[in-house]
Amino acid sequence: MRLSRYFLPVLKETPADAQIASHRLMLRAGMIRQASAGIYSWLPLGFRVLKKIERIVHEEQIRAGHIPMLMPTLQSADLWRESGRYDDYGEEMLRIKDRHGREMLYGPTNEELITDIVRAHVTSYRDLPLTLYHIQWKFRDEIRPRFGVMRGREFYMKDGYNFDLTREDALHAYNRHMVSYIRTYERMGLQAIPMRAASGPIGGDNTHEFLVLADTGESEVFYDAAITDLRLGNREVDYNDREQVAAICAEFTTPYARTDETHDPAVFEAEVPPERRRQSRGIEVGQIFYFGTKYSEPMGATVVNEKGERVHLHMGSHGIGVSRLAGAIIEAFHDERGILWPEEVAPFQVGLVNLRQGDAGTDAACEQLYAQLQAAGVEVLYDDTDERAGAKFATMDLIGLPWRLTVGPRGLKAGVVELTERRTGASEELKPQEAVARLTARFGPRRAEPDAAWL
Amino acid sequence: MRLSRYFLPVLKETPADAQIASHRLMLRAGMIRQASAGIYSWLPLGFRVLKKIERIVHEEQIRAGHIPMLMPTLQSADLWRESGRYDDYGEEMLRIKDRHGREMLYGPTNEELITDIVRAHVTSYRDLPLTLYHIQWKFRDEIRPRFGVMRGREFYMKDGYNFDLTREDALHAYNRHMVSYIRTYERMGLQAIPMRAASGPIGGDNTHEFLVLADTGESEVFYDAAITDLRLGNREVDYNDREQVAAICAEFTTPYARTDETHDPAVFEAEVPPERRRQSRGIEVGQIFYFGTKYSEPMGATVVNEKGERVHLHMGSHGIGVSRLAGAIIEAFHDERGILWPEEVAPFQVGLVNLRQGDAGTDAACEQLYAQLQAAGVEVLYDDTDERAGAKFATMDLIGLPWRLTVGPRGLKAGVVELTERRTGASEELKPQEAVARLTARFGPRRAEPDAAWL
Repeated sequence: MRLSRYFLPVLKETPADAQIASHRLMLRAGMIRQASAGIYSWLPLGFRVLKKIERIVHEEQIRAGHIPMLMPTLQSADLWRESGRYDDYGEEMLRIKDRHGREMLYGPTNEELITDIVRAHVTSYRDLPLTLYHIQWKFRDEIRPRFGVMRGREFYMKDGYNFDLTREDALHAYNRHMVSYIRTYERMGLQAIPMRAASGPIGGDNTHEFLVLADTGESEVFYDAAITDLRLGNREVDYNDREQVAAICAEFTTPYARTDETHDPAVFEAEVPPERRRQSRGIEVGQIFYFGTKYSEPMGATVVNEKGERVHLHMGSHGIGVSRLAGAIIEAFHDERGILWPEEVAPFQVGLVNLRQGDAGTDAACEQLYAQLQAAGVEVLYDDTDERAGAKFATMDLIGLPWRLTVGPRGLKAGVVELTERRTGASEELKPQEAVARLTARFGPRRAEPDAAWL
Repeated sequence: MRLSRYFLPVLKETPADAQIASHRLMLRAGMIRQASAGIYSWLPLGFRVLKKIERIVHEEQIRAGHIPMLMPTLQSADLWRESGRYDDYGEEMLRIKDRHGREMLYGPTNEELITDIVRAHVTSYRDLPLTLYHIQWKFRDEIRPRFGVMRGREFYMKDGYNFDLTREDALHAYNRHMVSYIRTYERMGLQAIPMRAASGPIGGDNTHEFLVLADTGESEVFYDAAITDLRLGNREVDYNDREQVAAICAEFTTPYARTDETHDPAVFEAEVPPERRRQSRGIEVGQIFYFGTKYSEPMGATVVNEKGERVHLHMGSHGIGVSRLAGAIIEAFHDERGILWPEEVAPFQVGLVNLRQGDAGTDAACEQLYAQLQAAGVEVLYDDTDERAGAKFATMDLIGLPWRLTVGPRGLKAGVVELTERRTGASEELKPQEAVARLTARFGPRRAEPDAAWL
């Protein structure tokens, strides 16, 4: 993308009402703009990040055997009366009347709607196990929205629902989600620690939240420092292998890790040696629940089992905050100059800076590099504007692309361009063709995950 | 995808309330399920089609130089008061009050919100031309929603907005959209004819609708038969070349083609020889508008031009009905047995039918074919269920995958499998490896459009 043809409205001033780093940086980097309280437009740069996060979530859900679909944003109040939640939910539910006076609502979550679909079409144990999910806009009418997309009112969430014959099957689905979530966050460069949590309005006893450690987190967390050494990495996971999946969950949930809601100081002190006890803050980026028949009983969602008996489905629900993750990643990765995007979610992989726009030789070298990198499948933002070098560097630092390729007349005279890593600041001079080869090897066209190529 | 692990709730009965083919077939093929009046869930098969349509729209917009972003579904009423449309819009606008009593609405379109963004950040003629677009859910509170996703209340639409310095620049943007739309529809296998239209609540004098000819269309259309011979095909289009783009528009708009709203019988008879006069029905799948300063004046969206004068932006807006297209494509392509998907938007490219599930040799042959096709990047739905052959064929015909690969013990004994084209019904027996080679050559991994790989 040529910056001169793009829409990247970076702000020089720090917006006064933005209290945390991610909110400030998303506004300053031209990623978002507030449309109304707690409701944001995703400007082009922010939209790219959102799509990259969304794609990783899709790929890992599909890898775990979960099936994507899409439910609407607006739901009928009648379904929520069946579960009893229409009256329970309180003022955070946005209630709407259509032109015929029918009561509707903007879905904050979808347990009722998905249960309605499944009870209509799934009749036999042979149709199970089944996990359906979608990524859709939700609404929660927060009384005081703040922190930008971290606590917005209209937000983008992946929510998935498992339907199983037995409690054991449903607990395997729960574990499968835990492992797929750990992998999802790791791919975004994040360590999100599963912590025993409270269930809130979803219900159920088994629930874990996933928290990214950050000073600006809304939750107080207590954990065993040993947990921060755990990585799933590139382990081959067979999501149908109950023992393997359960073992990974045990590995990640055995060290003490709880939010203030479930924290038990006595257990903490008994289990964790003093030098490994940590108290910190965390940002919640996901939560999983097993709640058994809480919805299938009132809504009559049953199947016939192997013995011909009609039994209620065992269910769970599982959410990842997709729009919130954009903010959480920035909270985890930024410095005083701007964002430090992990490569997998960076809006562009490389920023190409022309130090002397209008100089024929420099322009020609930049055009060639831009064309070669684009042809190789590298995502490049080419700053072809007339700004001076300092302003160009400041913008690149602010928007946080992982690599900067700097081209100027002096370097070209010596036959070199400069490649700079944003995270470390380390720079290297090398021949233009070496730079292309290096970046192509790193970012060249990645084949889509086989089952997700159609997304 | 293995059908035994998928969620494909096909219906044996034709739903009584579905009046047109696409609505009936989308319900019967397990693509959609009504959530409430005019509001649908997209079940897994339907979701795949929706995503494929969405991707083509994105790719062609990006190819034309338009920039993707994302605006929220809910908007503040205040912005719509600035343009004067809040009171004008009538009962089709879904009006909402939040917990603080603030007036909001579910966006039916986004002229006001995008103008608000642009007026805040675009100040100079040097920032132009600029075309921003998004694909987002919209709501129109139809008094009598019907025809499934063709006239739903919650619908998925691409809407784009151009901002230009002059009327001439804006008319080039208008033409650019026309050409990109023709290409978009052609990629989906559709001929959508640009017809001079009336502008309605968007405003402006220059507007064309794009109509797919179909008996079930809601519009009456009158056209010169010569227009149905026009194809854009794979012509190289330089979207910055005003003359080339204008010439293509002239080619596609010179033959008479109008909806009943703008039809003029005298002109029709004067311009079109009797043997080429056609009267038919059409489905609207898109519309483009140039409306000048209709929004920029009341909302104060200006830039400073080359002479230092402050001038109002010239604008247009341009929409493609993404969810509606799923229905329109089915209206155009179906037979008495089911859907006939064009290859580019088919939910899967190949249906693999095991005629004797449980027979070791047949199962092994199917597994191998399935693995090889998947590895080659072909999208396969493998019917590995216990259904009898007739039922499997009926399901494949209903859901309309372009190719069926049938594997049974008798054929395997002779060393062959059967490859059948859904559209023609033509079948061919060939060796399994030949079938893999044939399908791989046709569907093997297509590299994403260079600039759209991140989507």
